[in-house]
Amino acid sequence: MSTSAQIGVTGLAVMGRNLARNFARNGYTVAVHNRTPARTRALVDEFGGEGEFVAAETAKEFVAALERPRRLVIMVKAGDPTDAVIQEFAPLLEPGDMIIDGGNAHFADTRRRERDLREQGVHFVGMGVSGGEEGALNGPSIMPGGPKESYDSLGPMLERVSAKAKDGAPCVTHVGPDGAGHFVKMVHNGIEYADMQLIGEAYQLLRDVAGYEPARIAEIFRTWNEGRLDSYLIEITAEVLSHVDAATGKPFVDVVVDQAEQKGTGRWTVQIALDLGVPVSGIAEAVFARSLSGHAGLRESSRGLAGPKATALSESGAAAFADRVEQALYASKIVSYTQGFHEIDAARAEYGWDIDLGAVSAIWRGGCIIRAAFLDRIRAAYDARADLPSLLADDTFAREIAEAQDDWREVLVAATRQGVPTPGFAAALAYYDALRAERLPAALTQGQRDFFGAHTYRRTDRDGSFHTLWGGDRSEVSA
Amino acid sequence: MSTSAQIGVTGLAVMGRNLARNFARNGYTVAVHNRTPARTRALVDEFGGEGEFVAAETAKEFVAALERPRRLVIMVKAGDPTDAVIQEFAPLLEPGDMIIDGGNAHFADTRRRERDLREQGVHFVGMGVSGGEEGALNGPSIMPGGPKESYDSLGPMLERVSAKAKDGAPCVTHVGPDGAGHFVKMVHNGIEYADMQLIGEAYQLLRDVAGYEPARIAEIFRTWNEGRLDSYLIEITAEVLSHVDAATGKPFVDVVVDQAEQKGTGRWTVQIALDLGVPVSGIAEAVFARSLSGHAGLRESSRGLAGPKATALSESGAAAFADRVEQALYASKIVSYTQGFHEIDAARAEYGWDIDLGAVSAIWRGGCIIRAAFLDRIRAAYDARADLPSLLADDTFAREIAEAQDDWREVLVAATRQGVPTPGFAAALAYYDALRAERLPAALTQGQRDFFGAHTYRRTDRDGSFHTLWGGDRSEVSA
Repeated sequence: MSTSAQIGVTGLAVMGRNLARNFARNGYTVAVHNRTPARTRALVDEFGGEGEFVAAETAKEFVAALERPRRLVIMVKAGDPTDAVIQEFAPLLEPGDMIIDGGNAHFADTRRRERDLREQGVHFVGMGVSGGEEGALNGPSIMPGGPKESYDSLGPMLERVSAKAKDGAPCVTHVGPDGAGHFVKMVHNGIEYADMQLIGEAYQLLRDVAGYEPARIAEIFRTWNEGRLDSYLIEITAEVLSHVDAATGKPFVDVVVDQAEQKGTGRWTVQIALDLGVPVSGIAEAVFARSLSGHAGLRESSRGLAGPKATALSESGAAAFADRVEQALYASKIVSYTQGFHEIDAARAEYGWDIDLGAVSAIWRGGCIIRAAFLDRIRAAYDARADLPSLLADDTFAREIAEAQDDWREVLVAATRQGVPTPGFAAALAYYDALRAERLPAALTQGQRDFFGAHTYRRTDRDGSFHTLWGGDRSEVSA
Repeated sequence: MSTSAQIGVTGLAVMGRNLARNFARNGYTVAVHNRTPARTRALVDEFGGEGEFVAAETAKEFVAALERPRRLVIMVKAGDPTDAVIQEFAPLLEPGDMIIDGGNAHFADTRRRERDLREQGVHFVGMGVSGGEEGALNGPSIMPGGPKESYDSLGPMLERVSAKAKDGAPCVTHVGPDGAGHFVKMVHNGIEYADMQLIGEAYQLLRDVAGYEPARIAEIFRTWNEGRLDSYLIEITAEVLSHVDAATGKPFVDVVVDQAEQKGTGRWTVQIALDLGVPVSGIAEAVFARSLSGHAGLRESSRGLAGPKATALSESGAAAFADRVEQALYASKIVSYTQGFHEIDAARAEYGWDIDLGAVSAIWRGGCIIRAAFLDRIRAAYDARADLPSLLADDTFAREIAEAQDDWREVLVAATRQGVPTPGFAAALAYYDALRAERLPAALTQGQRDFFGAHTYRRTDRDGSFHTLWGGDRSEVSA
């Protein structure tokens, strides 16, 4: 048995297999292992020519095949299977070795595992990987957390196999301690939900209000993809919308059941934002829109509810409207990213993570689902000012949104009057208008809370907490 | 030591003390106990004349004072303190005795505790209590869960001390097994958040768009309180808005810091709805609006963002607008309750709880914060059809929302154009329009997911799961 493998991958379903091949193709000797050895042999049989693989049948062989410090990547289902694999391998490892979890773990689990393994001197690296099967093979965006020193030897390898941004920079960085990598990956997915929802709303408006057919809308998305919205999701939207179903000759999008599914990271993003006290209304609406779409019975029973029917615009009106939708989409997208980065920023404070928000936006520029030219601008915003309180506080974004806002508002007016649901666009605008408001009705809320629950309030003109004797003479007392 | 107390209360902070007094005032002999006995003595010294109290210094004395089966109400802080008290008392109890948790427990904790105590034959009743200090003393809305047989002897007592609806019915019912009571209490609070947010938005619109001063808006709320919006929250809104700050002579609402606080049940309502796959966008926006209001630094840095300034309407325009706001508020309120009841309905299915939704609305008619005439109509809707898929499927609500919707839309148009944040109104309308939509962009979402992650999709014209070979010849395969 050779002990020369620089990295090992256990769990050889499609993501693990492709990641192993990616390492091998980049010149690394890769130890491979799977619970059922047939899969290990199949990998070597089929792809052995791509590089150096060491097939290990047992956990002991696998560990023995790795040079020290050992770098052991586990690519199994998040949750209990991950714990099972850690329990299998941890006793075989020595101080300084690394376990790298490339699954979609909840960051709280990653924090727990890192803490447990730290006691025996093993470095646990929770590593977010985005880009699907294709990314795993040809270069994903990689978000490793865990002990900083683990990155010294692991980082260069990850940089080699990661996606590269257009400027050639590898799409990987040491995100931060313990669960920071998986946290950032989670928010990436939350933002992805929001991006997809906003694109969906833009599509629906172009269809119902502008009156365009899917093929025509695909062209519009292709045009948008040449501008500031240039991104993978806009690109594939055009591909999906231009696709024609062979069986029926209808636009593909019209034969797909309109019930969206989800796997959980979008939901987690919202649940954790609620714990952190961060408003992520755009992401929440995206998650809710998917769950709403799946309630077939509820929708069926609601189809008869009263409402306007959208009426298609004239040809010139439609073209002007499409331009407005681009503005609305862009402005809403700025808000989604503002909310997502706010959540990372809040986690940074909560968990004491030293996350570089500019670096996070930089590593999302390639390999992952939300890769976009737009991320260069976010990086520029944080590079210009690392303590930016919010993306909206960046001059460029503020100016762009200022220019977009009339159109943004008019698109929402059209949607509201014509009955086209635009929860994402509307939540984004409400967030924007609430943030810039001089006063919010939260003052009334505090007054009500003091009335019914003696929860007290603060005053604008002096310090302290106060309570009004609502049931008495309504004088004010210090609380 | 007498053993004649029909009920015992341990934990004599204000809620516990008031609940104990309520039982005593209703003719029950009440054993009282507190970790620090001084509080027990103080209760008896101060309120002993209101009824029969048995002061117990120790846990043993307390348990000995109760007739069997023992009914032991714990009124301590949710979380660890509740577990500590249970651990203290459980060993002293016998099969058939009841521990009744009247705190604001998370329903998952209640499920765990009920399961643990069931093993020793002790009935654990998780009991939601709404109405604050005042309600605890004079009649709260009570939402007990737990074993049905515990309600046989406990129910009549709760019915005596509970609030009474206008028709005289006690505001208490056996909600359902294990955590059902605390779950329903949680959703009650989530709906309360939404109600308060919608009222806040109505206030802001009347202030900024109609141009009214708080005193005038208070009058409008008083008028609304005589119609279909008749409710405790509308009533106290008028009280808060008409209150003038003695120190400054300004409207009270203008001297209160506009940063709303929260305690957690609203957040739980949204987090659990996400787990259950129920869209509760109106409640979520209410929770987010509170957290947004508290981000003072973020708001400060956003005040310069571009946007329209609201311009007050003419006197006649303002009056017409106020009527429209009432329609928008009412329609949005129907949606909030639709979402909240959907969440209870989903929990009913998930946990196998036999919750009577009509009975739940009936017990919210008195004592609690969201008490309202409106709840009579919800009860009527569920009484007419217990398997109503959604409140919107009720003819009366559907008709009312049909009549309201033009105004609802125009209020949102005004808010959108004038830059007044209305996240709750907007989320409610988007939900309504999405539910009634013939097709949703979720079909596009499924197409994108299949493109980048091979997540497959279903077709409208035949069964099965399908995948398009997007990277190949774009033919379709069964998945």
